[in-house]
Amino acid sequence: MTEQSGQAFWPTRSLTSVFAGRRRRLMERLAGPILLASGIRRVRNFRLNLYPLRSESHFLYLVGRHFDGSFLLREDDRWALYTAPPDPADTLWTGPTPGLDELVSELGIEVLPLSELSPPADCACLPPQDTEAADWLSQLLDRDIDAGMGAEVVDADAELADAMIELRLKHDDGAMAQLRQAATVTVAAHRAGMSATRGARREAHVTAAMESVITASGMTTAYHSIVSVRGDILHNESHEGQLHDGELILADVGAESLEGFAGDVTRVWPVNGRFSTTQRELYDVVLRSQLEAIEQIRPGQRYLEVHRTAARTMLQGLVELGICRGDPAELYERGVAGVFFPHGVGHLLGLDVHDMEDLGDRAGYAPGRERLTAPGDAQLRLDRDLEAGMAVTVEPGFYQVAAILEDETSMAPFADAIDRAQLAKFSDVRGIRIEDDVLVTDQQPEVLTAALGKTADEIEDLMAPASRGSAG
Amino acid sequence: MTEQSGQAFWPTRSLTSVFAGRRRRLMERLAGPILLASGIRRVRNFRLNLYPLRSESHFLYLVGRHFDGSFLLREDDRWALYTAPPDPADTLWTGPTPGLDELVSELGIEVLPLSELSPPADCACLPPQDTEAADWLSQLLDRDIDAGMGAEVVDADAELADAMIELRLKHDDGAMAQLRQAATVTVAAHRAGMSATRGARREAHVTAAMESVITASGMTTAYHSIVSVRGDILHNESHEGQLHDGELILADVGAESLEGFAGDVTRVWPVNGRFSTTQRELYDVVLRSQLEAIEQIRPGQRYLEVHRTAARTMLQGLVELGICRGDPAELYERGVAGVFFPHGVGHLLGLDVHDMEDLGDRAGYAPGRERLTAPGDAQLRLDRDLEAGMAVTVEPGFYQVAAILEDETSMAPFADAIDRAQLAKFSDVRGIRIEDDVLVTDQQPEVLTAALGKTADEIEDLMAPASRGSAG
Repeated sequence: MTEQSGQAFWPTRSLTSVFAGRRRRLMERLAGPILLASGIRRVRNFRLNLYPLRSESHFLYLVGRHFDGSFLLREDDRWALYTAPPDPADTLWTGPTPGLDELVSELGIEVLPLSELSPPADCACLPPQDTEAADWLSQLLDRDIDAGMGAEVVDADAELADAMIELRLKHDDGAMAQLRQAATVTVAAHRAGMSATRGARREAHVTAAMESVITASGMTTAYHSIVSVRGDILHNESHEGQLHDGELILADVGAESLEGFAGDVTRVWPVNGRFSTTQRELYDVVLRSQLEAIEQIRPGQRYLEVHRTAARTMLQGLVELGICRGDPAELYERGVAGVFFPHGVGHLLGLDVHDMEDLGDRAGYAPGRERLTAPGDAQLRLDRDLEAGMAVTVEPGFYQVAAILEDETSMAPFADAIDRAQLAKFSDVRGIRIEDDVLVTDQQPEVLTAALGKTADEIEDLMAPASRGSAG
Repeated sequence: MTEQSGQAFWPTRSLTSVFAGRRRRLMERLAGPILLASGIRRVRNFRLNLYPLRSESHFLYLVGRHFDGSFLLREDDRWALYTAPPDPADTLWTGPTPGLDELVSELGIEVLPLSELSPPADCACLPPQDTEAADWLSQLLDRDIDAGMGAEVVDADAELADAMIELRLKHDDGAMAQLRQAATVTVAAHRAGMSATRGARREAHVTAAMESVITASGMTTAYHSIVSVRGDILHNESHEGQLHDGELILADVGAESLEGFAGDVTRVWPVNGRFSTTQRELYDVVLRSQLEAIEQIRPGQRYLEVHRTAARTMLQGLVELGICRGDPAELYERGVAGVFFPHGVGHLLGLDVHDMEDLGDRAGYAPGRERLTAPGDAQLRLDRDLEAGMAVTVEPGFYQVAAILEDETSMAPFADAIDRAQLAKFSDVRGIRIEDDVLVTDQQPEVLTAALGKTADEIEDLMAPASRGSAG
């Protein structure tokens, strides 16, 4: 595949049988009626200027295609999509759009005009993401449904949520194919970013090179791209920063497949193409942490242990560099990891980049488990026992966050554990995160994004002019 | 400027005095209190995965910066921005964000915590674009405010709408500077698209090259990019189409400046780098139509006349090509132009690509004027007498739309006016539109996007390998 342009790769869709299978499996788990909203396309600055259409993930999982203002209804053993028939007056603007009959054969599902939608009052539903869709659903079902920003679900809705979680946690063949496609394009985007860095003067130039590959591949970004020399700002959305010799770029960028499945990869590379000694030492610490964590990915393993492995391995490396002092396991118990690694080691990956986070922690945390309170552990988005077919990210990071390091109260207990003078020698590292997408299998974990190199040597090679030439 | 990368150009912001001047001028026009919402950032598939923040245009006009969930209040001779103070808990994720004190000096306006907002009940307001913001505003003012998808405004709201229209119709120096920056980047994007076409196999590859320039320039697209070999589908959003020898690409792509002002340019170029004879003949007809229309742009000219000039000139050209038969002026009266040119010749351009279309036709149509009914004329979004300082697009087009040409009932009256056999010789033209951004001045109209060539020869030159080399 030509990394710069992505022209050799073009994404594909699943067969309709994939979605029929998902609908059947959901039906087997629940007896009652179900109504799922596609969501409503969001307005940007006026009615004809809209954000890209992105349907609700639960709807998308069962239908496979983005729809605006439509509904999927299950009654007894029958599923139907309700959508507005094409308006002939729109043909001038949109071209010929498939009629309901054509949709039936394209989607393999009964399709009826939206005007005929009359769902039973006892439908289970899931909270959509926007208030407009929630209001519409509330009217249709004559009960209050909040927009789903962690909205609580109860009764039949809770049963539906749990059934969807059960299905979506373990990816079927169609989902895996989509995740692989997203991974392929995500890898190509990162290679393009590395190649483009030597001639770039701003974060925006690197961002453009990376997103360009995603656009050229017919996909969209799965989330707002983080491309920043301020790796210490975990969700930095700005791309205005200038690139300076000696800095590291942290790029957390992922592609989303045609059916909505996400890639989610982070790499860090030096602006000038060569890691400094201190950068390379810390990079290797984070890499070892990530590799050890990936080793832990297997069916039956509790994901919290993956997180802990990453944290302890990182502390081990920091002790070896003289940044930390003491026994890594003890340092972990004392919460020292959270100083440098203040987020969780990863999350579920699927139709959402944090899969099913629309349901809060219901998907990420097994029943009976709750978030821990220690900094670092508190941010962990996933604590289930892994099963074959789950996809997760593994993404430990080391950061020098001023808000943490300069907070004397919370740092005081760690005075003996951290050598600040030694830490200061590593001031050319603001943040390093290494993230891959990993599929749990009965054998070795499958790293979906393995094609992208990640050792410091590999990164430097990918940035080298020879590599640029072959990619162009 | 390096067209491919956009690296030499970086956008700038207006001085705070620009916004202070706008607020003062609005205050001079209205006595009562005013409350304007910034709007609420839209959720994509879950709460932490959002669409890019794009504030309400009226708010943006007076504040100059995108805010989420904030309000601008005017009481007597005092303006204040109400926004949530930074949450220390977010610092890890967002980095240090400016406190309210810092915002005061950055924005040159009083800034108060959102929790202190208590607007007078008689505030005038304008309908925001999303229902969530409209609901919030309704609660704050204790009256029903619909989301502004052409929502009717009355009383004080109508006075506010008219005052905003009066201000925003004629661009001040700050707005013009932003429009020029958007135009610069838009021109560079089109050049990159032309350069990238020879090696491209899909519409998506050309789209990626164009949007990449916009991203690299620190801007966003002002609207969903149209990049399509199906120029006959006016708002084709798909970029999946393959490029074939002999086809034309129609690209309608624009950049949006830091303060929200839009560029909006359409060019058409041949996939293989050379217009066929028939393509070139029709291209020249559309170009002549556009140039004649631009000639009409002057203070005091009614925009409907600009539209009519474009339509009549196009009919003249079609008569010369033997596609139409008869007197162009008579053909226009009979509505023949609408067969091939079924949209208006342009619209207001400003903070919205169709400026102030959130207010329906209130901005585009002078009081007392209404849309005409003839096809082609009915789609005209602007019918005001032009004034110096207004920015408009001029974008005539010729299309072979199957839904129109194959509609026997509506085509029957034109049997004598159109030579279908002759038209069939031009079957390698699906759609041609040529669009520039034009500022009305007291002298010659200023074409903001003039730096981008538009004759058929210039287009072919821009696509030639030599041009690619110099752009790389």
